[in-house]
Parts: sequence; C-alpha cells; structure tokens
Amino acid sequence: MSAAVEDHLRTQQQSYIDDIVALCRIPSVSTDPAYAEHFAAAAEALGTRMRRAGFPSVELIPTDGHPAVFAEWPGPAGAPTILVYGHYDVQPPDPLEKWISPPFKPTIRDGRLYARGASDDKAPILIPVFVAEAFGAVDGNLPVTLKLLIEGEEESGSPHFEATVERLRDRLKCDLIVSADGAMWRKDLPSVTVASRGIIGLEMTIHGASKDLHSGRHGGSAPNPIRTLARMLASLHDADGNCVVPSFADDLLPPDPAVEAAIRAVGFDAGRYFDEIGAPRPSPLPSGEELLTRQWLKPTLEFNGISGGYSGVGSKTVIPAEASVKITCRLVAGQEWSAVAEAIRAHLETVLPPGYRMSLTVHGSGTPAFSVDPALPGLTIAEDVLEELLGRRPLRVAMGATIPVGAVFKRQLGVATIFFSFSTSDEDYHAPNEFFRLESLTTGLIAWARLLERLGATS
Amino acid sequence: MSAAVEDHLRTQQQSYIDDIVALCRIPSVSTDPAYAEHFAAAAEALGTRMRRAGFPSVELIPTDGHPAVFAEWPGPAGAPTILVYGHYDVQPPDPLEKWISPPFKPTIRDGRLYARGASDDKAPILIPVFVAEAFGAVDGNLPVTLKLLIEGEEESGSPHFEATVERLRDRLKCDLIVSADGAMWRKDLPSVTVASRGIIGLEMTIHGASKDLHSGRHGGSAPNPIRTLARMLASLHDADGNCVVPSFADDLLPPDPAVEAAIRAVGFDAGRYFDEIGAPRPSPLPSGEELLTRQWLKPTLEFNGISGGYSGVGSKTVIPAEASVKITCRLVAGQEWSAVAEAIRAHLETVLPPGYRMSLTVHGSGTPAFSVDPALPGLTIAEDVLEELLGRRPLRVAMGATIPVGAVFKRQLGVATIFFSFSTSDEDYHAPNEFFRLESLTTGLIAWARLLERLGATS
Repeated sequence: MSAAVEDHLRTQQQSYIDDIVALCRIPSVSTDPAYAEHFAAAAEALGTRMRRAGFPSVELIPTDGHPAVFAEWPGPAGAPTILVYGHYDVQPPDPLEKWISPPFKPTIRDGRLYARGASDDKAPILIPVFVAEAFGAVDGNLPVTLKLLIEGEEESGSPHFEATVERLRDRLKCDLIVSADGAMWRKDLPSVTVASRGIIGLEMTIHGASKDLHSGRHGGSAPNPIRTLARMLASLHDADGNCVVPSFADDLLPPDPAVEAAIRAVGFDAGRYFDEIGAPRPSPLPSGEELLTRQWLKPTLEFNGISGGYSGVGSKTVIPAEASVKITCRLVAGQEWSAVAEAIRAHLETVLPPGYRMSLTVHGSGTPAFSVDPALPGLTIAEDVLEELLGRRPLRVAMGATIPVGAVFKRQLGVATIFFSFSTSDEDYHAPNEFFRLESLTTGLIAWARLLERLGATS
Repeated sequence: MSAAVEDHLRTQQQSYIDDIVALCRIPSVSTDPAYAEHFAAAAEALGTRMRRAGFPSVELIPTDGHPAVFAEWPGPAGAPTILVYGHYDVQPPDPLEKWISPPFKPTIRDGRLYARGASDDKAPILIPVFVAEAFGAVDGNLPVTLKLLIEGEEESGSPHFEATVERLRDRLKCDLIVSADGAMWRKDLPSVTVASRGIIGLEMTIHGASKDLHSGRHGGSAPNPIRTLARMLASLHDADGNCVVPSFADDLLPPDPAVEAAIRAVGFDAGRYFDEIGAPRPSPLPSGEELLTRQWLKPTLEFNGISGGYSGVGSKTVIPAEASVKITCRLVAGQEWSAVAEAIRAHLETVLPPGYRMSLTVHGSGTPAFSVDPALPGLTIAEDVLEELLGRRPLRVAMGATIPVGAVFKRQLGVATIFFSFSTSDEDYHAPNEFFRLESLTTGLIAWARLLERLGATS
C-alpha cells in the first residue's frame, strides 16, 4: 500500500512542480498593503487545489486581515486527527534589483525553483496536499483524519492567527499538529526542530524640525535626527553586539540541555559560516559553538532597516525632519515580549536628548519562545521517518527564527506541534533569489506519506 | 531715465511672473541623473528668454555635465563690465508627498509662488534679464556691459564650473561679479552676505554579509551593518553635536570681527528659531548668539541621509547586507576640504570594527569658505541701493550655506564677487514647498536697475 502511494507520488512530480509554480506566481506579500489585492486570488488558488486533491471540505476563513484556508478530510473511524499548519503569504521581494529572475516569475535553474515564497512556505504547504491526493487516488482513503489550516499573515507576525484558532477551536480539534513551516537546519544533516526563538518588532522615529532644512543655512544649530538616532542606537549594544538594554535579559530560563548537546555535536564551522554568508571573518574568530549558541539560545536586538533624509543618487544638502529604525528582538525562554518592549522603550526614553521627539510603535503582539516536549510520541515517529529516508537519526535542534504557531496551538487547543519541513535554511527565504530545492520535493512527499501512515497506525 | 525704467519694470510684472512660472515647470534637478533629459530644455528656455530680452549674444556652453548659459550685452564705451552669476538647476523635490502643490506645477498662494527652484534660483536669475530688457526698451542701452553666466550644476556642487570659467576666461573678463544666487538672511532685516562656509560631501557604506540575511536564522551571529554604521556615526560628534574627529578643525582662522559684530547686532532669538523650524526647544536653551555663531562661523559634519535594510510599510525580518550614510561638512576659513575628508576617512578607518568592510566616496571636489573684501566699492554701492529701498543700512552677514563661485571667480578671473539676491532664507529652498515671495520680485527689479545704473556711473 505504502509503496503504491509512493510510486504514485514519484510519477506525479512534474505536475506538482507546475502547481507550486502557479501558486508562486501570486504575489501574496502580507507585510505591505500594496499587495493586499492578491490575497483573495492566492487563497482561492490554494483552496481550489485542495478541492481538486479530494478534500471534501475546503473553506476560506475570513479574518480581520488576510483569509486563512481550512480543509478537512475525514479518515477511518478511530484514526487520529492531524492538523497541518502552514502559510501562503510571503516576504516582501525587495531589493528587487538583486533578483536574477523576477520574484514572482518562478524559474527553475540547476534543480532549484527560484521564486519569492517557493521555500517559505508555498512548496512545503502543497506537499501534504499532494500526499493526501495520492492516498485518495491509490487507497481511496487517508490513514488519518487530516485537517489543513493555512494562514495568510505569518510573515507579518500572524496578528489574527490566534483569534482565528480560538474561533475555530471546535473544528480544529486534533491529536497532533504538524507544521509544514520551518526549515531543516542543514542540507547534509537531518534535524528536527524542537525549539524556536520568539519575536517582538518595534519601530522608532526621531523627530527634529517639522520639515527638512537646508544643511548649509541650519547646519550646526538645527537638530539632526540622523545624528541623534545613530547615537541612541549605539547605546543599545556593547562593542561585541550584545544588547545592553537594562532588564532586556533579566528573566532567562536555563538553556535546554538537548539543544546544548546538539550545538556540541554538529561541529559548526565558524570560518565557513562567515565565508558562506560572504562576510569578512572577524578577528578574533568566535568558536562555532559560540556562534550557534548566539543563534539558538541567546536573545537579540537587530536593526532591520534604517532610513532618513536623502538616499537617492548623488547628494542633497538637507537636514531631515526625521529618521527611523525598524527593530526586531528574538526572544528566548523566560522573556516576555511585552516586558522586553517596555525595557527598550524605557531605555530609549532615557537616552533621548533634549530638543528631539521620539515616537515608538510596537508592531502587533510579540511571540514567546517555543519548545516541544522531548517525550512526545509524534516527535519520535517523525525522527524515525527521517532516519529511514536520510540515513541518519536527525539531531534535535533549535531554531533562531520564530514560529509563533506552536505557542498558539498549545494555548488554544492544548495540543503539541512538531515541525516537519523540507525547506533548508540556506534557501534565502527572506532575501533576494529565494529558492526551493526540487530534490526536497521528492524527499518531502515520501516523508509526509510515511509520517501520516505511521501516525495512522498509532490509533 | 531711472524712473522710466522703474515704471516699465512695474508695469511688466505679470508677464515676468509668467516667465518665472514657465522656467519653474522644467524639472532641472542636477543631483539625480533621472532628470538629465530636461536640461537641454531648461537651458534653451533660459537662453531664449535672454535673446527675447535683447541680449545680442546668447550661447549654450557645453560642459562635461549640464550646459551653462552665457549671454553678453555690450554697454557704452568705457562703462564697467558686470558679470552676473546664477544657476538654473534645482534641488531634488523629494519627499514628494509633503508638497501641497506639485513641485513642478508652479502655484501662487498668498502672494507666494510655490515651485521647486522658484527661490533657488530661477526667479533671482531672471530678475537681471528683465532689468536688462527694461533698460533696452526704455533707454535703448544698458548702463554697463552686462554678462550673464548661469550654470546648471550648482546644486550638485558645481563639478564643472571652474573648468568652464577657466575655458571662457577671456570672454568673462569683467570688473565685478554680482551673484544672483544667495539669500537675504531675514525678510525684515536687510543684509548683504560677505562670507559663506565651504563644503565637502562624502558617502560611506558599511558592508557585512554579501546578501540580506534572515534576522531569525542569523540574528546574533551575522554582522549587522546598521548596528555598526550607527556606532561609527555616534563616534563623530560629542553629546552637544560638535564634531570630534581628530584634525577636523585644526587650522581654523580667527573669525571675521564684522560678522561677529553682526551676530551681536541682530538679536537672534533662539527660542523663536526652534519654534520656527518646528523643533522642540532644547533645554537648556542656547543663546541666540551661540546659535548664529554655529551657523556662520563654525564648521559642521551633518548627516544628510541614512539608509539600509527595509524601510517600507510594516516589518521585514532581515539583516541587510549594507547600510549607508551621506555626509556633508560645512567648512570655515582655514579648513582645506581635502584635509577634512582625509581626517574623516582616517577616523572612520580607526573605528571600523573587524568583520565589516567600509567604502567611502568623496563627492567631487570640495569648496573652501569664502569672504568679500570689506573695502570693495561695489559692496558699498549695493548696500546704498538696499538702504534706499528697504529703509535701513543692511548688515554685513555671513552665510551658513556654501556659494562656491566666489572662490572660483577670484582664482580664475581675479575679480571679487558680491551677493545681491532677493530670495530669503526662509523660503524652503532645499525642502518641500519651496516658494518665492512675489513682493521680492518688485524689490529685486528696482534694486537691480539701480545697482546697474550706479555701477555704470562709476566708470
């Protein structure tokens, strides 16, 4: 039975690629209102593909933002219920000029599908749809009751996701959540993600004069918001890049020993890391364990964007009225997002010099750090499947990035989430030239088929 | 005779306004190559208006950048030769969304003509053209030999102007240069500018990784160029905004006592200054003399623009590959632009941390500070004319902004330059909603007619 499903999946790959390409053509950028018009089309395309796969019930779920897509396919009586999570929205594509092929014209080069959203998260969300279709076509039935909940606001911090889950609580009842979002940590080393950092985003603007001023006439006497912004930002870290905001990291819990063990096990090569990201190796070079500890177990305060005054070609002799910075903090276990935001605000107010005004916005709600119970049976099953397919027991790793859904599902449904994604973290999914490895499609299809089958056998 | 010319000027004002409007419609933004196509039209329109005024010789002068316009109208034998300087290029119009009426759709509101370039420098350069026309129409002759040299690159730092003056040296021979560029310092207080600060522009980019990175995956381990840029910029000033770059202000000459006297005389109101620019009053409030001293007699290092990462709506969880800043320094007597640029470069190289690369560009050549000989007869004549028209002997003031031409003309022609402009420095000429007061047109026309007549009488 399983072999027949797997054969079916292997023969259909070209049509699956066509389906992924079609979904990637739709620019469902959730962080920028300019793309809002495309969301109905994206959600409808996804829902249509689910219906075609055989899901008897597919529904677009309105939210106060972009719609979610919910689908359900009942399995045999007594089979467990698996809820698959993913998202069909994508990161903004800019800087556009750095894309080799346009972000919304999917292009295959060297076995990779290049498109904004290909890896994060459009190919990964379609894989369980294809697998359900194959079970239906070959077996006439699924090994589990399968529910899919695919949201459209993950890249904006899922502002309406928790409310949606709460509203649908009865229909989302399940035994395990499997997230198709996330990423394998490295292509050559199987891993399952058991923890992720949380996030909180802020935006600060420093205001000086009420309008841009001539820097000749006013230079020396007028407030310069860029100068003050730079000075204030410089007060947030020490020379090594550690956040020094008072109370920022007061309440950290001790790090997870399993993740610390993985950090020691993976042999992270610091020199190669800097080479791969194309940055000069700092001197002295930190150890690989130190770098990975900073990615997985330490909180951050990162500047994601800065702007103010003239940034076009050439020069403009202006003192701008304002200058702004966008900030995100990654949070680890023990940090409350609201307390972190408050600590930053309090510090910035302290260092704001006279003669300037500051406005500070917290972007939506933050997300706390997340971790999976190490004894969860579904986690072991997922590890078994990956070991069979990839030849090696996966490491239990943490994730620097944030997947807020784990915390939401735990809170609203009382159910655990495991991550089962076939993206890998080098696929530039928040940068130009995002791609998805087509070989991961094959692996992902077989892995999902086996995962669902084994989970079905646990009933 | 003078009365007849003045009457003529007064009756023609509406048609003069139409001419100013027509020239302001042409977006001759010299700092941005995207506007290059408009320069031929702007130069041609200006030349055509000069021909129509009666200048027997009008010529577009090609340069390695935008063309200059040169016109000549011989006066009576023995009359002195006056060379008028100005520029027909303008500042960039952005931020566009802050304009009440579009920058290149000139609009009159409340006796003001709103348009990019109206005040700086399109109305002021047309005034001597109108005055020459009036002398020709009424007297059949000019009181002086009048030459006009109107360049197209002033807002870009006049990169080809000195070469142009050198090439035309013989044709530019004259007894005095009168600049139609510059600005009266305050509407209610007549002034003549006798000194201006110099300028040097730089641009620095800090490079981290070779591409934008996901701030979740890489946050904590990857270089963040915004963080490093902010830190480096914060090292350039003390908490009071004074530049602390070593050797930046090593060679300053003692300030001009006349300008120091003017600073004491004008009663500059510091509180009103901050209110007028719409900035919070700093506490403690500096004295008015202190502020004016900083504008006129102190060098600056100002940030004109900063950019890096995502600055669109919402958030993007990215660590950018690079971040940039645009800098201009205003220079006072004694500072060499090249030494200042070198001092900044040396300091920035010192504070650049390991793990980052820096690229630093100096924008063209700098311009040294400038001053007029206090005993120059032409200066006294200009002051007499202004006193007659405005009811008060003008103060001899300095200018925070840079007018590079004085130094160029001195070097190339050995001739002094006086500033005779009817813009005022509150006309937002490097900001949105630039305007020119139409009442200044009347004053300017009469003043230029009298100035030329008196200068002619000195022959």
